[in-house]
Amino acid sequence: MVKQSLKFVGQSVPRVDGIEKVTGQAKFLGDLAVPGMLHGKVVRSSYPHARIVSIDASKAEALEGVAAVLTNADISDLNAIYSGRPVIAMNKVRYVGEPVAAVAAVDQATAEQAAALIEVQYEELPVAIGIDRARAPGAALIHEGRSDNICSHESVVRGDVHEAFAQSHLVLEDQFTFPMVYHYAMEPHAVIAHWNEDGVTVWSSAQHPFQVRGDIGKVFRLPTSRVRMVISYLGGGYGSKSYTKFEPLVVALARKAKAPVRVCNSVGESMITVRRHAAQVRIKTGFKNDGTITAREAEIYLDTGAYDDNGPAVTIRAATRVIGPYRIPNILTHAYSVYTNSGSAGSFRAIGAPQVIFAGESQIDIAAARLGMDPAELRQKNLLKKGEELRPGLKGIDADLNYGLKKLVGASQWKSITKKKAAPVGLACAVTNAGATPVSVAMARLQSDGVVNLFAGSTEMGQGVRTVLSQIAAEELSIPLGRIRVAGADTKVTPYDSSTGSSRSTTCMGNAVQGAARDLRKQLVMIAAETFRVPQNQVKLQDGSLISGEARLTFQEALERRFGKGSGGELIGHGETTPGLTENKMPVFWEVGMGMVELQIDEDTGEIGVKRLISVADVGKAIHPGGCVGQEEGAAMMGIGHTLFEQMVYDANGNLLNPNLVDYRVPSFNDTPEEFRTILVENEDGPGPYGVRGMGEGGLLSVAPSVCNALERATGVRIKDLPLTPERVWRALKEAKK
Amino acid sequence: MVKQSLKFVGQSVPRVDGIEKVTGQAKFLGDLAVPGMLHGKVVRSSYPHARIVSIDASKAEALEGVAAVLTNADISDLNAIYSGRPVIAMNKVRYVGEPVAAVAAVDQATAEQAAALIEVQYEELPVAIGIDRARAPGAALIHEGRSDNICSHESVVRGDVHEAFAQSHLVLEDQFTFPMVYHYAMEPHAVIAHWNEDGVTVWSSAQHPFQVRGDIGKVFRLPTSRVRMVISYLGGGYGSKSYTKFEPLVVALARKAKAPVRVCNSVGESMITVRRHAAQVRIKTGFKNDGTITAREAEIYLDTGAYDDNGPAVTIRAATRVIGPYRIPNILTHAYSVYTNSGSAGSFRAIGAPQVIFAGESQIDIAAARLGMDPAELRQKNLLKKGEELRPGLKGIDADLNYGLKKLVGASQWKSITKKKAAPVGLACAVTNAGATPVSVAMARLQSDGVVNLFAGSTEMGQGVRTVLSQIAAEELSIPLGRIRVAGADTKVTPYDSSTGSSRSTTCMGNAVQGAARDLRKQLVMIAAETFRVPQNQVKLQDGSLISGEARLTFQEALERRFGKGSGGELIGHGETTPGLTENKMPVFWEVGMGMVELQIDEDTGEIGVKRLISVADVGKAIHPGGCVGQEEGAAMMGIGHTLFEQMVYDANGNLLNPNLVDYRVPSFNDTPEEFRTILVENEDGPGPYGVRGMGEGGLLSVAPSVCNALERATGVRIKDLPLTPERVWRALKEAKK
Repeated sequence: MVKQSLKFVGQSVPRVDGIEKVTGQAKFLGDLAVPGMLHGKVVRSSYPHARIVSIDASKAEALEGVAAVLTNADISDLNAIYSGRPVIAMNKVRYVGEPVAAVAAVDQATAEQAAALIEVQYEELPVAIGIDRARAPGAALIHEGRSDNICSHESVVRGDVHEAFAQSHLVLEDQFTFPMVYHYAMEPHAVIAHWNEDGVTVWSSAQHPFQVRGDIGKVFRLPTSRVRMVISYLGGGYGSKSYTKFEPLVVALARKAKAPVRVCNSVGESMITVRRHAAQVRIKTGFKNDGTITAREAEIYLDTGAYDDNGPAVTIRAATRVIGPYRIPNILTHAYSVYTNSGSAGSFRAIGAPQVIFAGESQIDIAAARLGMDPAELRQKNLLKKGEELRPGLKGIDADLNYGLKKLVGASQWKSITKKKAAPVGLACAVTNAGATPVSVAMARLQSDGVVNLFAGSTEMGQGVRTVLSQIAAEELSIPLGRIRVAGADTKVTPYDSSTGSSRSTTCMGNAVQGAARDLRKQLVMIAAETFRVPQNQVKLQDGSLISGEARLTFQEALERRFGKGSGGELIGHGETTPGLTENKMPVFWEVGMGMVELQIDEDTGEIGVKRLISVADVGKAIHPGGCVGQEEGAAMMGIGHTLFEQMVYDANGNLLNPNLVDYRVPSFNDTPEEFRTILVENEDGPGPYGVRGMGEGGLLSVAPSVCNALERATGVRIKDLPLTPERVWRALKEAKK
Repeated sequence: MVKQSLKFVGQSVPRVDGIEKVTGQAKFLGDLAVPGMLHGKVVRSSYPHARIVSIDASKAEALEGVAAVLTNADISDLNAIYSGRPVIAMNKVRYVGEPVAAVAAVDQATAEQAAALIEVQYEELPVAIGIDRARAPGAALIHEGRSDNICSHESVVRGDVHEAFAQSHLVLEDQFTFPMVYHYAMEPHAVIAHWNEDGVTVWSSAQHPFQVRGDIGKVFRLPTSRVRMVISYLGGGYGSKSYTKFEPLVVALARKAKAPVRVCNSVGESMITVRRHAAQVRIKTGFKNDGTITAREAEIYLDTGAYDDNGPAVTIRAATRVIGPYRIPNILTHAYSVYTNSGSAGSFRAIGAPQVIFAGESQIDIAAARLGMDPAELRQKNLLKKGEELRPGLKGIDADLNYGLKKLVGASQWKSITKKKAAPVGLACAVTNAGATPVSVAMARLQSDGVVNLFAGSTEMGQGVRTVLSQIAAEELSIPLGRIRVAGADTKVTPYDSSTGSSRSTTCMGNAVQGAARDLRKQLVMIAAETFRVPQNQVKLQDGSLISGEARLTFQEALERRFGKGSGGELIGHGETTPGLTENKMPVFWEVGMGMVELQIDEDTGEIGVKRLISVADVGKAIHPGGCVGQEEGAAMMGIGHTLFEQMVYDANGNLLNPNLVDYRVPSFNDTPEEFRTILVENEDGPGPYGVRGMGEGGLLSVAPSVCNALERATGVRIKDLPLTPERVWRALKEAKK
């Protein structure tokens, strides 16, 4: 087939939700007011680990304006455990801030007043904060009936690492730690639930409406058809809104209050609702003298907090992602998630990856120095080639990693810059097996006014998915973007989509939308071919019209041909993505992250700044290049955050000490690199429409190791613990000078 | 293709909405309470024709609990005229009961109290009640700027009636009148409107949600995509809920009140909202001695009330329907709708037909007596044959009318019974060009739990459309009815359907649903063929499974094959009905109505009872025979109503004197014929699925002329005015005996 030039795909068109957002008209959950809605407040545990002796809600219930108080007594009829956590604390609490009761009242002030009137008596239990205390012999058991606090375990085995280490010329073993960090989406979690005779309707800031629907159905013993999830815009997700958070609690509260109830988290409440796993990573890698990697062993402990959330999946991912993007014949990795008395950890952009890639890519540079090789060359030598297997059971690598690294090396002038002694530059490479589930269904419905309504269940959380899906439909149908509408998910209406996460939407939902648009196009072409009395292959789409030679038919005219003048008849196209997209092989795609930094280091204060950051995103094909660059830069900034600043600090009593923007430091515009570049690699080799593969997580991965590698190149000091606060850097530099 | 035996189609399965309805769980509009909803009350004119001098709402507005008072001052920004009527009376009122203001308040009592406080000053104008006064020279003009009160005019011309009458052996000219009657659906009209930033959501008892959406869009200058109509169950329609009634008024009130508002009509209010056209029909027919009809001329005046509503379409239909089911080479008909100072007339089961068929079929019997022919034979001789043209511009007759009449004659033992002198039996035949617009679109979506959700915009108003559509889908997919769900229309979600009226749903929406189910089936068969590795034509559907030889795959397993285990992936089928269904020829189908009655006549009191009633419905194919019989019998009972009892009585001042069930007499179970039979003709020659054609209106048509024909056969007295109240019959009998 002759390749047609693309008109909408590949263009950085204005965002379809842009005007709505910059004019403040876009509705986020906090903007919604369901008529008759009550306001909810969650009463939270003040102890990290305690038995609940009694809850006295009588004063709260007596307060005027209070509609309902929910406690564990109200959920005895439910399947009350989901994602390993109860809808509301049952007999004991396992972290400071765990919901023990909730109030619904006529306004927020009354709800808060009532919440303060609820008296909970606790009997304190021994506490395990952090991985070390939770793993210590005799540690307090956070969940009863277990022999330890290990939540889940995953390992990857290939070949024989012991034999391989014995045969290696260089074996390195290092220990790294990665901080507990929070996503800090602008919008904290929020939920409105409305229980009625038909079931329940939930408006939520959920990234994965269909999965939350499933959980609510299970908890409340409702068929999924009686659970309706309606998702508006999200003010950022980054995984914090993946899976089910406190939706079931709000549903239970609304059920008791017999009215719609809204619960909006504060930032502090959201920080204990979900976060990234802090990690301890022991990593051991063997090399031949020529730099060939022979073996890698890793032991990973992830602080998963009090409940599972998505911790087990993060653990599974970490066990593979620690392998890096390299050809390693012998592998033995173990990843464990560990229960601790803190808020649960769950999905966070590139789950399980930054923790282990920080370790692996730091160690590659340590090895390069020991082997006297250029770190880029050492990587180049070991990078998996296209089609090669990273580990058994996974699809071969579908991207050209060498090409990407060459681009990075070239664009950063790596060779000339590293000739300078102690140049403060570093780089790192990563590839992750996307967790994307390849199931998405979409509809494209051409209405009689010429508008194409896309029914696609992807959640718009700032990543631009509505724009990208519109571009795909516009391209396939050759109509201006203004004639395409994409709404949010409403599970009663919108076809199934497995999730909005794992960088999957452009590939998986994009493919479904492309299929839907093509189905619609086929129907239009048939009408035109009949009208023009020409074979279908002689009909082309151009600017919202069907043409053949001189003959022309607008879409509206085509509808009139089909349904008659003045009718409202519509054409329906549908498309789907199935595991067949990649012949049942997983991952659906490999996500590539490579980057290079140049630092500014103030050796007197220990303060580090990132002066240059060049990132390579192998996107296969950029549907919206500006959006891709924005995603990559956003991810890199997040990487700068956990590398230099961010860390949630719990005290020994399980109190989060910095639950706000003053005490929890995220990168600001002042921290933006002076030179900040993203190189998009577009080999059209991804499985999605036009050859796209997922992106937007990869940009996060190379930052921490690049920065640590640059710091060592510049100063000789290797730091293995993040974040690189001025104090930590200053102490390390001082220690080195001793 | 070998004809397969049908499993669901043709069976009188339990209604899919049966349990919900008999247990009282089904929600009608009056059962809905949108949270925060206010209650509305319409203030109505007490004059039939008057100028509005002033409206003082200040006392009402000052009443506690009143949210808004709507008057004509509030609608100056609107396109305030739709269906020829204003949203609310502008400068003058044209019938007693016309809305002049409306109140929204916290409860119904407050709304009514406030409504009573509104002071309207009128300046009375001359009045024209009834066709005669409205047509009289110098009559008060109901609409300004016109030369008379004629609302619309339609005529049918073929050949030369004057010449033909001159050549005829017998020419009859008679004058008939038909009463003003009301549908008396159990549920009066009701509307909830909720105006918000996104547009407006309207819950309404509307039969045609998509058409009301269009009207509201025009009135409020909103794109249709911002008008959402949600339709629950309707408690009966019969045309009374066709097109737009007072939805725009409630939307305007909600817009002003800034809250959802509900307005529920009383029965009396609904009676002035819409009714059937009273009629005067002068009809002149020429015959040869052998009974051949040579010519027909007709002049029809229809009392359309103060505003158009659907009057012009009724008029168009009457001008054709007066021709009857006969081969008439020379035709000249004129039908006029006439404005009068009463509530508007609009659609009513078989629009424009009973009035004119009463006239035509009465006159055929008069002719038979004059020609000395048996009335059945006279009809048989002139009935159109299949394919013959009733009048130019319409599709040939698609049913076998002679076959139907033979069935009627046989089943009623007509020949033996009429041998008896003065037997009180009569019959009549009719055919109507269905007004059905052939545009319907449907979706059948197979969900991961194996449920098929039908998205079909037909309104369930008791006629059983959800059951019939479910049967069609069950048949095509070979799954039990319990696995099919059909919801009501939600114009934001449900594909376009032109209306639920004109007996069109089983044919037009049925065809779309059949197409959707077949599209889904095709997708399932493809999956099975791939799984079984057999050609697609070797896969069969049986009991919810796909089979080929010994191989078997349930639908859920097929979804798993496509989307993977545990996924929520769904398959989407869609189908459509277009004018192509009947090759762009209208009507989509001819509806057939034939019937015979035997009377019980009390000559002392003039009271008439229908002892036997046999009705023939040529349905092409009965999807649900029990439902067809129910529809036919229901229609016949309605026919008994306007024949024997029903008449809305207006006094000279425009007051409706009998707006309730005590004073307005509808048939009761006591009036049910002792022998009440429906004969379904199933020649599978209709255009819908399995050969169906529309039915449910035809049963109404033969009753009035049959009864009058039977009365004359028994007593020699011909009555040409309905209803046949005991007083009217007694007087006529007495007059005849003079």
